Amino acid sequence: MSFIYAIDLAGTFVFTISGALAASDKKHHHDIFSVFFTGFITAIGGGTIRDVTLGAYPVVWINDMNYLLSIFAGVLFTLLFRRYIIRISRTLSIFDTIGMAIYVVLGVQKSIVYDVNLLAAVVLGMVSGIFGGVIRDTLLNEIPLIFRKEMYATPCLLGSLLFVILYVLQIDSNLNFMLCVLFIVLFRFFAVRYEWSLPRLNFKE
Amino acid sequence: MSFIYAIDLAGTFVFTISGALAASDKKHHHDIFSVFFTGFITAIGGGTIRDVTLGAYPVVWINDMNYLLSIFAGVLFTLLFRRYIIRISRTLSIFDTIGMAIYVVLGVQKSIVYDVNLLAAVVLGMVSGIFGGVIRDTLLNEIPLIFRKEMYATPCLLGSLLFVILYVLQIDSNLNFMLCVLFIVLFRFFAVRYEWSLPRLNFKE
Amino acid sequence: MSFIYAIDLAGTFVFTISGALAASDKKHHHDIFSVFFTGFITAIGGGTIRDVTLGAYPVVWINDMNYLLSIFAGVLFTLLFRRYIIRISRTLSIFDTIGMAIYVVLGVQKSIVYDVNLLAAVVLGMVSGIFGGVIRDTLLNEIPLIFRKEMYATPCLLGSLLFVILYVLQIDSNLNFMLCVLFIVLFRFFAVRYEWSLPRLNFKE
Repeated sequence: MSFIYAIDLAGTFVFTISGALAASDKKHHHDIFSVFFTGFITAIGGGTIRDVTLGAYPVVWINDMNYLLSIFAGVLFTLLFRRYIIRISRTLSIFDTIGMAIYVVLGVQKSIVYDVNLLAAVVLGMVSGIFGGVIRDTLLNEIPLIFRKEMYATPCLLGSLLFVILYVLQIDSNLNFMLCVLFIVLFRFFAVRYEWSLPRLNFKE
Repeated sequence: MSFIYAIDLAGTFVFTISGALAASDKKHHHDIFSVFFTGFITAIGGGTIRDVTLGAYPVVWINDMNYLLSIFAGVLFTLLFRRYIIRISRTLSIFDTIGMAIYVVLGVQKSIVYDVNLLAAVVLGMVSGIFGGVIRDTLLNEIPLIFRKEMYATPCLLGSLLFVILYVLQIDSNLNFMLCVLFIVLFRFFAVRYEWSLPRLNFKE
Repeated sequence: MSFIYAIDLAGTFVFTISGALAASDKKHHHDIFSVFFTGFITAIGGGTIRDVTLGAYPVVWINDMNYLLSIFAGVLFTLLFRRYIIRISRTLSIFDTIGMAIYVVLGVQKSIVYDVNLLAAVVLGMVSGIFGGVIRDTLLNEIPLIFRKEMYATPCLLGSLLFVILYVLQIDSNLNFMLCVLFIVLFRFFAVRYEWSLPRLNFKE
């Protein structure tokens, strides 16, 4: 479990950086506080919505200070190395996808522990992965990435569904964890690489 | 109670459709995932905010899979029959009003059960009816309908207030339920028909 | 405690007015319902998010009707005296800052009672003070004031931090309360007066 915990904190760190950077090309002014706030919201938003919806108190970052320390570290890192970070943004985006995948799988796992119905677990897994970004984009008055970027939320939803299916089939829990994280990361990678997209709907015709 | 339960699920189904359609005339691209997500948020938003504010765990769709099944059915229905649905949009709008009215009355009823103060019950009734749409519009970067459309939230607020007044007067609970749903639907109907509006305020003069 | 309670209700009253006014120079139409709704959201948003995140049920305005009565009084006051209010908007802005400062300190205090980690208490104190306005601005499709206005959230964050530091140093609780409210109000006053600002970050270079 301590391996997953370490990965979780690393995910928080990376999510904070990507959250802070996402705010950086916006029109509004961008001071140190904004970097902190957008990073913070991105990192804790999804998990907080999940825990509050589950009634899973205490919410994870309220209980364990290490999450906020990871966020502060992420903010500091962004402030110190921002020029360098932008140059490695492709690398960062890979880490971001890994972080998101981990959040999704941790989310669906926790939902199952709280004995929710399995469809709700699938949805809450996805919510854990994407809602931090959704809240951040909404606060910055942008249409959330999930509506703009092809295949951003869909891999999360499918990975979350896969976890529940394998869970029902009683696959070993750690194996299931690895498989689903891998599935989300690879699905997203190939979706970007080969420009997969879902059918668009024309309601106008 | 099973009659109200059936109506509740039907309301969820209709709300999902109207939520998915509301997203369809927006600028952003609109794939299958967006249809699902906007429908889902519209259908569960108001009740989730109400339950989380009340601390009424488990939140209704977390516990009972039928709500998510109604949502999936609504999404599927929208995808399959979207051309037909748009032609009957006036009919749908009536169902939407009925669904909203039911959500309001179920919301105020549940709030009273949780022993909140009666003014808070009035507010939470309204919140149950309108907040799904508010969250959807906000995520789509639109000003919520409640600020743009005349007499959308006001019938909900008044219907919620009426329920509390009749509750205090110890009217039979089922009769109260019917009366208030009818009140909201008719009030909204006449408001649209005769273009009622609340006084606008000019703060500039 | 009854002195703080009175101040809390007065803060709710003032927050409602400033919330309703903030909506008044927007493009969208602005009827009586909008005044009520934006005032309400501004007044209860921060505390509700805090209580729900803490699992501190019942949420304060659900339990105690006086908060909603203060909000109704604030809405009525805005409707009746809006021309006069606008002329004294500078005075109102001082009250708004005092209200915000009180919300922050009450927020951090309550978080400590709920035994959260101290960093989370600092963050939740700030959230209590600013999130009502953040939700209001987001619903009105504006970039929240905290991203546009210099030194709006920063004094809240620093005042919240100061409270936790003095708490750890075991300063008398009432003294701590006064000191931190005073700190936030004065910090904000001087920040506006002398146009303090945080370093802006240029991520583009």
